[in-house]
Amino acid sequence: MRQFVVLGHAASTDPDLSLDDLPGAGRFDVLCRAVTAAFTLSHAIREDVRCFLVLQNRLSIRLEGDELRYLSPDERNVASLLKNALEAAETAVGAQAVESTPGIYAAKRGFEALLDDLDGTVIQLHEDGDPLPDLGLPDTPIFVLSDHEAFTDAEAALLAEHADARISVGPEAIHGNHAITVVHNYLDTDGYTRYDR
Amino acid sequence: MRQFVVLGHAASTDPDLSLDDLPGAGRFDVLCRAVTAAFTLSHAIREDVRCFLVLQNRLSIRLEGDELRYLSPDERNVASLLKNALEAAETAVGAQAVESTPGIYAAKRGFEALLDDLDGTVIQLHEDGDPLPDLGLPDTPIFVLSDHEAFTDAEAALLAEHADARISVGPEAIHGNHAITVVHNYLDTDGYTRYDR
Repeated sequence: MRQFVVLGHAASTDPDLSLDDLPGAGRFDVLCRAVTAAFTLSHAIREDVRCFLVLQNRLSIRLEGDELRYLSPDERNVASLLKNALEAAETAVGAQAVESTPGIYAAKRGFEALLDDLDGTVIQLHEDGDPLPDLGLPDTPIFVLSDHEAFTDAEAALLAEHADARISVGPEAIHGNHAITVVHNYLDTDGYTRYDR
Repeated sequence: MRQFVVLGHAASTDPDLSLDDLPGAGRFDVLCRAVTAAFTLSHAIREDVRCFLVLQNRLSIRLEGDELRYLSPDERNVASLLKNALEAAETAVGAQAVESTPGIYAAKRGFEALLDDLDGTVIQLHEDGDPLPDLGLPDTPIFVLSDHEAFTDAEAALLAEHADARISVGPEAIHGNHAITVVHNYLDTDGYTRYDR
């Protein structure tokens, strides 16, 4: 099982956000691309993946690869599924999670509560981290990455406490969704050693 | 200079295509994601990149990283720039290229004519190719990849003639834009050896 946690600092939590202006909805487009990178293969869904989107540190959307339905890779489709989740979140009581479409759950939960619940090797993706090949091949990696903004001081402090490793995926500062793709490829190939089908 | 050639077999060449339904426009979304993967860094554009999109084997859109303006990573933005290019293409005479916005050029040119003009190491990205790390680090790599459909027999025959290598990026069949990201990361890190900024 591979897990990803993506922090959307300003991402809109309004279910009425416009599909015609995803960047204007607090860079909602960034979260959509992260979902596509996390789950989609050429003609399949990665079933061994779980992804959490944390919006404004107060709402978490969880996506389960082995349950997902209706997911196609284009941003507008992903955004429409996430809009459903935002709508479902409005009915959530306390920290209870509400399923909007198969495999997508929303809960009123921030980053710290989420981090406390995670079980696995927590890996912060960060420009100044150790080289990805030094990570080895953890059984249950949980990659934590930020959106287009840097981690806040509070997030960095939490990660300093909870993270088992801080990893860089290369010398260029790349988008979060691209980092997810790189990490998948690293794990798919068992650390760049296995390419046969 | 890194170059990418992406074949969009059914991609719409109609400048009136709907931004609200990119998948319905012959999977235009696939081309948009390829452009974003080819050019965007976290807060910059990769200036040493050139990308060709070949639509229905009769229209080619060329994007030049060192000239590009107005490119943001969301699909809808990329699609709007490409729509401008489709509109400009209608005024193109013969094989002449017409610039629509800075760094984006459209021409009535198919895959074979394009391939004849390319100068560099032509690398076919293919599920059954050799492992990416076997590629080495060519000075002027030109990666050729297909959209969601396989290469046609005619394209495969042309590539058998022109390609210097056939390369696989891993054991999973991944989307073309994800393959572009993997290839960039391989080259950025000098073959997974350089991670310092």
